Amino acid sequence: MGSVANVAELDASVVKITRSTDLRPVPAPGSPEELSHSYCTDHMATARWTITNGWETPEIKPYGNLSIPPTASCLHYATECFEGMKVYRGFDGKLRLFRPDCNGERLLSSAQRTTLPSFRYEELKVLIAKLMQIDGPRWLPKDQPGRFLYLRPTLIGSGPHLGIQTPKEALLFIVAVPWPDPSQLKKPGQAGKPGLKLLASAPDTIRAWPGGFGNAKLGANYGPSLVAHGKAQAVGFDQVLWLFGEDRQVTEAGASNFFVVWENKDTGKLELVTAPLENQLILPGVTRRSVLQLARTEMSKSVGSLAPVEVIERDFTIGEVEQAWKEGRIVESFVCGTAVRFNSHTYYPRDMLTRYQYYITPVKVIRNGDVDMDMLEAGASRAGYAVQLKAWLEAIMFGKDGQENHEWSYIIEGESEK
Amino acid sequence: MGSVANVAELDASVVKITRSTDLRPVPAPGSPEELSHSYCTDHMATARWTITNGWETPEIKPYGNLSIPPTASCLHYATECFEGMKVYRGFDGKLRLFRPDCNGERLLSSAQRTTLPSFRYEELKVLIAKLMQIDGPRWLPKDQPGRFLYLRPTLIGSGPHLGIQTPKEALLFIVAVPWPDPSQLKKPGQAGKPGLKLLASAPDTIRAWPGGFGNAKLGANYGPSLVAHGKAQAVGFDQVLWLFGEDRQVTEAGASNFFVVWENKDTGKLELVTAPLENQLILPGVTRRSVLQLARTEMSKSVGSLAPVEVIERDFTIGEVEQAWKEGRIVESFVCGTAVRFNSHTYYPRDMLTRYQYYITPVKVIRNGDVDMDMLEAGASRAGYAVQLKAWLEAIMFGKDGQENHEWSYIIEGESEK
Repeated sequence: MGSVANVAELDASVVKITRSTDLRPVPAPGSPEELSHSYCTDHMATARWTITNGWETPEIKPYGNLSIPPTASCLHYATECFEGMKVYRGFDGKLRLFRPDCNGERLLSSAQRTTLPSFRYEELKVLIAKLMQIDGPRWLPKDQPGRFLYLRPTLIGSGPHLGIQTPKEALLFIVAVPWPDPSQLKKPGQAGKPGLKLLASAPDTIRAWPGGFGNAKLGANYGPSLVAHGKAQAVGFDQVLWLFGEDRQVTEAGASNFFVVWENKDTGKLELVTAPLENQLILPGVTRRSVLQLARTEMSKSVGSLAPVEVIERDFTIGEVEQAWKEGRIVESFVCGTAVRFNSHTYYPRDMLTRYQYYITPVKVIRNGDVDMDMLEAGASRAGYAVQLKAWLEAIMFGKDGQENHEWSYIIEGESEK
Repeated sequence: MGSVANVAELDASVVKITRSTDLRPVPAPGSPEELSHSYCTDHMATARWTITNGWETPEIKPYGNLSIPPTASCLHYATECFEGMKVYRGFDGKLRLFRPDCNGERLLSSAQRTTLPSFRYEELKVLIAKLMQIDGPRWLPKDQPGRFLYLRPTLIGSGPHLGIQTPKEALLFIVAVPWPDPSQLKKPGQAGKPGLKLLASAPDTIRAWPGGFGNAKLGANYGPSLVAHGKAQAVGFDQVLWLFGEDRQVTEAGASNFFVVWENKDTGKLELVTAPLENQLILPGVTRRSVLQLARTEMSKSVGSLAPVEVIERDFTIGEVEQAWKEGRIVESFVCGTAVRFNSHTYYPRDMLTRYQYYITPVKVIRNGDVDMDMLEAGASRAGYAVQLKAWLEAIMFGKDGQENHEWSYIIEGESEK
């Protein structure tokens, strides 16, 4: 797919920069513009690919609409994949990406799953850095540590072609979007415990299947899931907990990975359990991978008041969760992912803002058929794993608490003085 | 989804027409422009929908690129569905659509499967008629009966929104494209029997799953299938024959429905067999439905030299096909669908043009693992069902052989004099 010897590779070092002469107002936190999830920064990065010439010179240029032929592959055949990432303004004043090569590798893997062109995945972080060197100073001011922008690298089949076939033209683009920060928006004194409400999927609707593409970040995984998502929201839930198979395996929640901490029935020891990657049903989340790595290295012994946990990736069923819940063996459960999701299927009522999810979010309730499981109740005295993991991740992302030079950080140097 | 009482319905009768002042050359049959499958006629139809106002006034306007925000739902979440149809220049000089309400209903059903807006499906044919009243006379001249254009009604989530949710804006558009006609292009004296070569899918690649969306014409069904399609083409096959489940059920071929005519092992009688719709694995093709209806009403008794067939929709496996083939019970097999597919995964070599598929195309070979089944061989003396069904359909589509006023035809009146 495009990695032919005589066609050009993606090379972010030669990017052509055209600066905007009409800078956009930076939206205030909590403003309608920010809550729209679609108000982009002043510039965007683009790189065009054709089967004959390979990757053209990437560009940083003023943000604007794309001109797409009505016959474009991406509009008909879902030849499209994307990544969700963030850029963080650190407490040391530096801009950071979190494990950007993980996203680059996954974008490449997703591209291959839908015959979009290959590229040197390390170039993705360089292209993002070029974009943020320009937009970083204005959209993430150095004197406002702890803020971030959401980044959306996207690769689409952009060429005109109604015949169903491998795309002959493609467009990689990256936009950056101010994203609501729940810690800024939460109303003081709001009632109720925080946490997500998950509705387990019905047997007649599934998200992914073996031999399918549930493990790739393709657009094709999202559009068809919106019906179930909308039904869950209509009855007051935040996300669908996707089950699979006759034994009702727990796979993932909405578009985030699901973890449960429970007491092993036989040994009495605590386990942190999540679905495995081998059967290709779930997205290999970057946060998931990081949580597993941190838990394996840091939580095999006690951390403060938290007892050691054994980290296990295996198939497990909603029946096992239900049994553990009935027997009081659930300590806590949580979901993780880069983006936020919250309960709104029309516009953005302010009173729902506490339901934002931020890297790692505890689960409050799981409904499976007639059974409502309160996931916070029984284990409350032993819980805290989600909070601890989130604290460790945030320290790395924002370069604080001694994590200024963590190996998972990619620091963006050379921000524009303008 | 949008059918709220106080928002506007789609109404093709009030379409706003803006005529092109820069008409495009009509490509010659077999020209590179025609073979591009993306050279559209002078105009296109569009209709915009928003969650607040419903359907805006549809437009017929000069063909051109769409201006789409980089954050549009369709580019990230595959909120997109389409139809494949044709408009035919009849032998009586009239323009016809073939069962357009079937396509309208299916587009509506696909839209609902991915939370795109509802619409009165009967309006689709009216909007197409408005478009063809303008482009018909020039692109399908009245003195050239037997020609057709391919029509592509498409509905996309067009609004800016990176949050994963039900689209709040949508765009319906219809383009018309000259499409190569294999009967015009076949080289005289070309060697070999005509027919498609199908490669049965491997167990590790699955197109659709019960509870999924294989029965909706969503973009999400196509992009992820291109890998298997490309592999099949690379080893000389035209399409993938998609199998499902541990018993390897035969579902559909590429993006067309698959039929086999065989001799029942026990009764010795002939059967026309195709996969059923109930398990939601296959697309409910309009040609499929028409073939079943014609075969049920016209082929229950002998037709010329063709023996009667019983028409059966049921699950059947590749093992059954293989056994029938080994025992010499295969009479013929064929695929059907509106669009053509042929063996090319780069550009369009002229020597492959005989592999075009046109409504109904016989299958020449099926490869399943190590077994190559010649599907034309054993039954040659008894075959002819595909040819007969195709002839009946063509008579209806082109208004000939006494089928000038068939109930499946929608005649477009009022063509422009310009």
